[in-house]
Amino acid sequence: MELTNVKSPRVKAARRLAKRSFREQDRKFLAEGPQAVREALRLDGVALELFATAEAGQRHPELVAEALERGLPVHRASGEVMAELSQTVTPQGLLAVCRLVHVSLEEALAEDARLVAVLAHVRDPGNAGTVMRAADAAGADSVVFTDASVDPYNGKCVRASAGSLFHLPVVIGSPVAAAVRELKGRGLRVLAADGAGERTLDDVDLSGPTAWIFGNEAWGLPEEVRALADEVVRVPIYGQAESLNLATAAAVCLYASARAQRVP
Amino acid sequence: MELTNVKSPRVKAARRLAKRSFREQDRKFLAEGPQAVREALRLDGVALELFATAEAGQRHPELVAEALERGLPVHRASGEVMAELSQTVTPQGLLAVCRLVHVSLEEALAEDARLVAVLAHVRDPGNAGTVMRAADAAGADSVVFTDASVDPYNGKCVRASAGSLFHLPVVIGSPVAAAVRELKGRGLRVLAADGAGERTLDDVDLSGPTAWIFGNEAWGLPEEVRALADEVVRVPIYGQAESLNLATAAAVCLYASARAQRVP
Repeated sequence: MELTNVKSPRVKAARRLAKRSFREQDRKFLAEGPQAVREALRLDGVALELFATAEAGQRHPELVAEALERGLPVHRASGEVMAELSQTVTPQGLLAVCRLVHVSLEEALAEDARLVAVLAHVRDPGNAGTVMRAADAAGADSVVFTDASVDPYNGKCVRASAGSLFHLPVVIGSPVAAAVRELKGRGLRVLAADGAGERTLDDVDLSGPTAWIFGNEAWGLPEEVRALADEVVRVPIYGQAESLNLATAAAVCLYASARAQRVP
Repeated sequence: MELTNVKSPRVKAARRLAKRSFREQDRKFLAEGPQAVREALRLDGVALELFATAEAGQRHPELVAEALERGLPVHRASGEVMAELSQTVTPQGLLAVCRLVHVSLEEALAEDARLVAVLAHVRDPGNAGTVMRAADAAGADSVVFTDASVDPYNGKCVRASAGSLFHLPVVIGSPVAAAVRELKGRGLRVLAADGAGERTLDDVDLSGPTAWIFGNEAWGLPEEVRALADEVVRVPIYGQAESLNLATAAAVCLYASARAQRVP
């Protein structure tokens, strides 16, 4: 039986998860598209419910089968219902309702963390998701969203993370000072990535356990956050560009750390 | 006198530059926002005409003054006219009509080039612009858009480049085989960045003159393009991410080269 009524309680219950306040209240979020759905289904107890159009179900029978095997309700949705639930211009026809996956800072750092990305005041969800993806690729142990940052469960952020939200422990809502204290307490060197840094990435020894703090795209890191760090470090600019895009700067820093920690 | 008629010939002549075919026909494009306008005005003979709302003119009097000093027509535009010309949701009130700035591959490589980015089959204008910005920051000598790539004069690409389109020689429309032949002939080692590479970024000697080929976000580089390169190199993935976003992968590769060329 196909869900065709955009006003049905089931559709409305999922639809409201587009809003942060309802996500927090219901402790659930939406993972859209085959990649995110696949990653969500790999984890125990994370995906709670699947919506699929007939067409998407035929294109990805393995995902529908996996959901059914896990005992999840699978709803066949009309194109109209999917458009109502989707947060993209061209919906891919698959969408999972998931429980929130973040952990506490203590849990995230429980095992010896050697590389952590801290997002302070990052407001653009696409950038935040791209940083999560880069952190995952660089082998980071965790990504911390401070209390002034965007919600990682924002649909755009989930999409930009390309599944990485499900790959590594994500912490949300931590005040930046508390996060820095905890990271330092665990023996990580805390580096603030900012154009104001005296030394560049190439001049700093990155071989030890390191946490990077990345700031807002437009105005970088405020003075009080820079002051919390062990050192402020900048990505060298060799050409005429004023700066790098936040996500590319973060990727360059995280990969410099990954390399220094591995290549002798 | 304020331009208020969205159907006036002047507005229509600028408006049509939103389309690639008209940009090619008129040999002009639109640079929007204070940053792009500032960079365009720094170059001789590039900006041809300025549109500014009264408000934006008050916020950036130095740009209006610079345009007038260069003898350019400066048009005060109503909010409605600016909205008609702008390709953004929230127009910043400043927009310059510019002549096309790209050069031939021969000109771009005239001086000893040591670092070049080649965009093959890159279709997303935001990604292409972000790669231009990263290439500029990493001190690249040129960015080459092959004939199957997005138009760098696309409004989204210009914006994402954050002025870098005006900073370094950009080549457009070159067939990828011709570009690779020319780059090799000039003594550059041509590396294709692709997940299929046997060796990673950390295993390759990047200290010599290098051209990087970056492919399409979704499907990477086709076999025939990989075959043209001296070597296929991948960015190492240390975590569970399947891949990196194209622009972040490009930034990591370009910075690895910049570092290897500078740090002994």
